[in-house]
Amino acid sequence: MNATDATIGEIGEGATLARIFPILPSSRRTTLGPGDDCAIVTVPDGRVPVTTDLMIEGPDFRIGLSTGYDIGWKACATNLADIAAMGATPTALVVGLAAPAATTVRFVEDIARGFHDAATALAPGCGVVGGDLSNAPLVMLAVTALGEFDGVEPVTRSGASIGNVVAVAGPLGNAKRGLDILFDRAISPDGSIDPVAVAEAWASHPVDVAAQLRPEPPIAAGRAAALAGATAMLDVSDGLVLDARRIATASGVAIDFDLSAVGDIDALTGGEDHAMLACFPLNAKLPAEFRVVGRVAPGDGVMVDGVPFDSRGGWDPFADYSATSSQ
Amino acid sequence: MNATDATIGEIGEGATLARIFPILPSSRRTTLGPGDDCAIVTVPDGRVPVTTDLMIEGPDFRIGLSTGYDIGWKACATNLADIAAMGATPTALVVGLAAPAATTVRFVEDIARGFHDAATALAPGCGVVGGDLSNAPLVMLAVTALGEFDGVEPVTRSGASIGNVVAVAGPLGNAKRGLDILFDRAISPDGSIDPVAVAEAWASHPVDVAAQLRPEPPIAAGRAAALAGATAMLDVSDGLVLDARRIATASGVAIDFDLSAVGDIDALTGGEDHAMLACFPLNAKLPAEFRVVGRVAPGDGVMVDGVPFDSRGGWDPFADYSATSSQ
Repeated sequence: MNATDATIGEIGEGATLARIFPILPSSRRTTLGPGDDCAIVTVPDGRVPVTTDLMIEGPDFRIGLSTGYDIGWKACATNLADIAAMGATPTALVVGLAAPAATTVRFVEDIARGFHDAATALAPGCGVVGGDLSNAPLVMLAVTALGEFDGVEPVTRSGASIGNVVAVAGPLGNAKRGLDILFDRAISPDGSIDPVAVAEAWASHPVDVAAQLRPEPPIAAGRAAALAGATAMLDVSDGLVLDARRIATASGVAIDFDLSAVGDIDALTGGEDHAMLACFPLNAKLPAEFRVVGRVAPGDGVMVDGVPFDSRGGWDPFADYSATSSQ
Repeated sequence: MNATDATIGEIGEGATLARIFPILPSSRRTTLGPGDDCAIVTVPDGRVPVTTDLMIEGPDFRIGLSTGYDIGWKACATNLADIAAMGATPTALVVGLAAPAATTVRFVEDIARGFHDAATALAPGCGVVGGDLSNAPLVMLAVTALGEFDGVEPVTRSGASIGNVVAVAGPLGNAKRGLDILFDRAISPDGSIDPVAVAEAWASHPVDVAAQLRPEPPIAAGRAAALAGATAMLDVSDGLVLDARRIATASGVAIDFDLSAVGDIDALTGGEDHAMLACFPLNAKLPAEFRVVGRVAPGDGVMVDGVPFDSRGGWDPFADYSATSSQ
């Protein structure tokens, strides 16, 4: 048996973990890393933002469209984005991974490499401090991220006020276009995946496909927004309109987008870009990453060019998941 | 459609979460609870222990043996135990739940009630501060727990020294006996579960079955041990011998159990009791919950009455999981 071809069932939990740990990124904010009942993360100002997300084979990724590396990268990046969207800096991740016993150790190592490279690229100093490995008939990741505020006040969804400008850091709509391209070209009606077509999609539409499979949320923009006085913020995970409606509802205001500034319908309703959407006082000096796309208005809900935009424009894992369609 | 019979697929993610949130326990250590990108947990002394565990239908529980309430209780209790085993007090949990769209809302509410009642009974003031809900072909929980040290030093696995006494808080072996009883009586060779036999097992062996399905780890004993000067500690999740070997290896010592004090072979090798296993200086005044079961000796590994105990005596989710056997 070649070491590369070994499965996690063959070598077992302990040996698999021993292969993964050296690959994972380490955190500058731990006093105790993996291997005990708990890790210990230091939190200088005594307030720790915490967020958790599941990524499940099927609704959240498909093996063949995504490599193990892509899966690890995206699971890391999307959790970092939730910390950043509070104005905080990510410091630590814990990762639960369940996979079939027949999964290769190589695949699990690739997931670990994805975590390493995403954390290093997007949030240097943030590391994986603990985790759990288990047996399941499909691949599932459960990631929990912690952060630190380091002198800024948390930016919630509820602080937007009338007259604020609405701004976005990061591209919008790319991830949806990437998913559409992959489904159009690489997935058969029976759900099978054509690896050649996946490679061709990457080659012909690298920006859109990367936005879907290996997103690069503007993590540092979250803290920059908090320092600039952002009144409300979130990361655009489910679509700009749906996520903006969350700020509008929590803040008791309306958000009115300028379509020419937003771009197009994909930018309004496509999800998974993990751009930062923030509201700022009218006189705030916006961080360089942000561009103005609208304003906070009286009323409720979301408008586009002053007209209420009532279609849902977002993602529900129960209503919207199909094995063979991106819609 | 009766509201009780609705499925999570029918009512969707948002409505399901709205049903669960009011049931979940709340944390006295949050400044921001569920509903934003992150929750915010306060950490008075700037050190936060963090642990994560997956509980997966099949390897970790079977629906029919466990109710939704039992699943929620156990997922909560086992994570609380990992915080306690550092000498810390649990403060906050985040919970990822994946389940088939056909799962009833009632079942998910029962899981939430299990979390509520376990947190209230075992670690008052610890609450669920956030989570994620997703779609999967089987039920999976991913729980991450946070805590606080509140004036005690973290107790790791590596501090045991020769001459320490070895002590346990909580029963040993009950959870394994409970599992054996359930498998013997309630699971057919084809893996199907007889609900009448499950009820009879609860009625005839309530202590052992409860230890397996609805464990009550001695959470407060963890902090008590730290205050009493414990040098090393963990919770016995995978079996006393296997877990003691972890302390022995990390500390560079041997642990020698007194079989008459431990009890029997189930107590030595059965897992899932989540008792606290701790080492104390010889002159320490042990907290009331602890009983002495051995001593720390020169050498390595685990001994029983001075004789090396080399069988593995523990659980590996890949090597040991079978759909139809508890062994």
